Amino acid sequence: MPVFLDTREDGFEAGFRAMLAAKREDAADVGEAVTGIIAEVRSRGDAALCDLTARFDRLDLAPEGLRFSTEEIAAQVARVSAEDRAALALAAERIRAYHARQMPEDASWTDPEGATLGWRWSAVSAAGLYVPGGQAAYPSSVLMNAVPARVAGVERLVICVPTPGGVINPLVLLAAQLSGVDEIYRIGGAQAIAAMAYGTETIAPVDKITGPGNAYVAAAKRQVFGRVGIDMIAGPSEVLVIADGEQNPDWLAWDLLAQAEHDADAQSILITTDPAMAREVALAVERIIPTLDRAAIAGASWRDYGTIITVRDLDEAARLSDRIAPEHLELCVADPEALAAKCRHAGAIFLGAHTPEAVGDYVSGPNHVLPTARSARFSSGLSVMDFLKRTTMARLTPGALAAIGPAAVRLAASEGLQAHGASVQARLGTLNERPNG
Amino acid sequence: MPVFLDTREDGFEAGFRAMLAAKREDAADVGEAVTGIIAEVRSRGDAALCDLTARFDRLDLAPEGLRFSTEEIAAQVARVSAEDRAALALAAERIRAYHARQMPEDASWTDPEGATLGWRWSAVSAAGLYVPGGQAAYPSSVLMNAVPARVAGVERLVICVPTPGGVINPLVLLAAQLSGVDEIYRIGGAQAIAAMAYGTETIAPVDKITGPGNAYVAAAKRQVFGRVGIDMIAGPSEVLVIADGEQNPDWLAWDLLAQAEHDADAQSILITTDPAMAREVALAVERIIPTLDRAAIAGASWRDYGTIITVRDLDEAARLSDRIAPEHLELCVADPEALAAKCRHAGAIFLGAHTPEAVGDYVSGPNHVLPTARSARFSSGLSVMDFLKRTTMARLTPGALAAIGPAAVRLAASEGLQAHGASVQARLGTLNERPNG
Repeated sequence: MPVFLDTREDGFEAGFRAMLAAKREDAADVGEAVTGIIAEVRSRGDAALCDLTARFDRLDLAPEGLRFSTEEIAAQVARVSAEDRAALALAAERIRAYHARQMPEDASWTDPEGATLGWRWSAVSAAGLYVPGGQAAYPSSVLMNAVPARVAGVERLVICVPTPGGVINPLVLLAAQLSGVDEIYRIGGAQAIAAMAYGTETIAPVDKITGPGNAYVAAAKRQVFGRVGIDMIAGPSEVLVIADGEQNPDWLAWDLLAQAEHDADAQSILITTDPAMAREVALAVERIIPTLDRAAIAGASWRDYGTIITVRDLDEAARLSDRIAPEHLELCVADPEALAAKCRHAGAIFLGAHTPEAVGDYVSGPNHVLPTARSARFSSGLSVMDFLKRTTMARLTPGALAAIGPAAVRLAASEGLQAHGASVQARLGTLNERPNG
Repeated sequence: MPVFLDTREDGFEAGFRAMLAAKREDAADVGEAVTGIIAEVRSRGDAALCDLTARFDRLDLAPEGLRFSTEEIAAQVARVSAEDRAALALAAERIRAYHARQMPEDASWTDPEGATLGWRWSAVSAAGLYVPGGQAAYPSSVLMNAVPARVAGVERLVICVPTPGGVINPLVLLAAQLSGVDEIYRIGGAQAIAAMAYGTETIAPVDKITGPGNAYVAAAKRQVFGRVGIDMIAGPSEVLVIADGEQNPDWLAWDLLAQAEHDADAQSILITTDPAMAREVALAVERIIPTLDRAAIAGASWRDYGTIITVRDLDEAARLSDRIAPEHLELCVADPEALAAKCRHAGAIFLGAHTPEAVGDYVSGPNHVLPTARSARFSSGLSVMDFLKRTTMARLTPGALAAIGPAAVRLAASEGLQAHGASVQARLGTLNERPNG
């Protein structure tokens, strides 16, 4: 049974807090196992990758088989139907167009003191994209990772995707091709992350690793962070739908179940101002679950984490939304823009009844790699920014140094950093003067 | 003795690689100790903070003494000289002006299909700034962390600064005051990071933690990453000075030593096209070291990690620079802009002979919290972006959903996510149609 809460009832706050605090992820600590896997890949390179792939993916590979050959990619891609290809191409183009607008601009200006200041953006040289394997080998994830990297200007793009039992989804390879990626390795888990971070005989190291994955992948990303950049530690996914009383309950039920069918740890929450809507959506969800191909997964998610909250008004809904800081926030209300202005912490907002979250997973354009588990409080979805870095620039004239340098000399003295001050004083010709005071 | 390399000599590549690979940081694994400290703070709150502060900082505090009172701050700040105050105020204002230009813009547009897309930036609600204590309690670090947070619009700013033996630098408190921060705790190390991430009875948790620190602080930031956002894992600092033959060797020597005096693990590298300049700078450095207050530290850094490389031309210098990916890059050459255009990986670039790196530490305006240890390959210095997050927005009209929805339905089917497709089909009135193909 999902949780039903009502802000007008006693015990709401306790129930809401319990929902927020519920640990949705298996707390299995895989850190030590991952440390071992990373050490193995660092010391034994390709041989370790082959051993680990045999062990975890039931797939025997020689080092030369780690990478998909051009012929394999072409053969797999040829199996994709024209309709699927067209859908994927549409998605790729819309994602490209959206992310192209994210490209930040360089800046340079000269201030009244004569200091020319600014910054410059540049792409990382090489990025590695992790794509989960098996049932979760989503071609859309390839597009969502690879397209922003390409838009940012990353020259070398690597994909690692495990192929348990040797099975690959041809659409994953097509998505890679549409994104301009041809360096694709059939490895997964912590060993794939280690290979991309440290390199092996076959795989040159990258500078940045992005993409979602299981607990092993997440732990490995955490451990290699610093050696390479990473995007985020993704947790189980969630959606919050805020609805008024004038919605189609079936539509909302489908939206909640689209989240629930991802994963038994996923969470679907409805907040509504209308108690009747709360009841109707709950009934619709129960009616639909048995009809789903993934009834067991969606049913478990809804039973364990599904939540329906009735609130007094939309302001209250917005306040609760900010406490949840949802990955996906759907606003099925008469004036979604007004409500969106009151919701500060969310990964992505879907406005109005005709914007189901699922279009955002594929074709609307914004990225579907979004901050989970309340991390929208402090982080953003994947974007071109994840594949760029900023270099700050400063050039002082002798006059500018004369104007602002003495303050630097004084502060350096206060911090006990004599050579810092002297490097300025030498240029100002005041090296033998002591700062007064 | 520093390392002398020449790209025209045999063995250069091996020597350069050895320099790049040299581990400058004590590899002491403090992860386990930090895990214990975090667990203690989570379970015992303020009491744990007091115990740990007594143990590590030789300071007995009651919980009500953890926070600096308004009176203490005022009394300490009153001790600052007018000259120091003026210098700090100049720095704060220049840092504010620079970072104000970094504020990104929201975007919204409607595409031909009728989808209104865009994004919105918002500040994190609460940020915690770690300021190293003791000898390294730098007021400039307070400004460099707190000012961008304020510019971004963070409402609640917390500073943690250890005060070993109870000693605080009054300028640190003044810098906090100039930045508008009055929630200051005299705690440090992993326990401060744990308190900011999880909260205690006295300290409410924050959403983002920034600021440099020692190995314990770095390990703690790594462990709480995900629960809160963090900026980066800072390592020992480095400078690369690229110089032609027309420079003042003393100036360059001071710049190299300004880096070396930070820390025995700091690294100062000179690359020059002129063998005579290489010799003269080396002599100047040796002459100056014994005169420094911090001669032992600067001398150890220069002896262990100092490097002078003679190159054929500036193109070669730029290529080596990108392999180093220096935190600070000084271009003391006739045309620094031309050389800067060839250097892609650097945290901050200082152009021309009158822009010593030390002005960037204090007053030029750009941030001095910069990516170390080659991480400029994939990351940027601290900025307002570290205190902002982006929410993507999408609103589809019924017509837009009709135009792009069918592609989402098809991709959902290919990924086996039936409810995803159905959430679109329900709105399109095609729920009972199966996608063809």
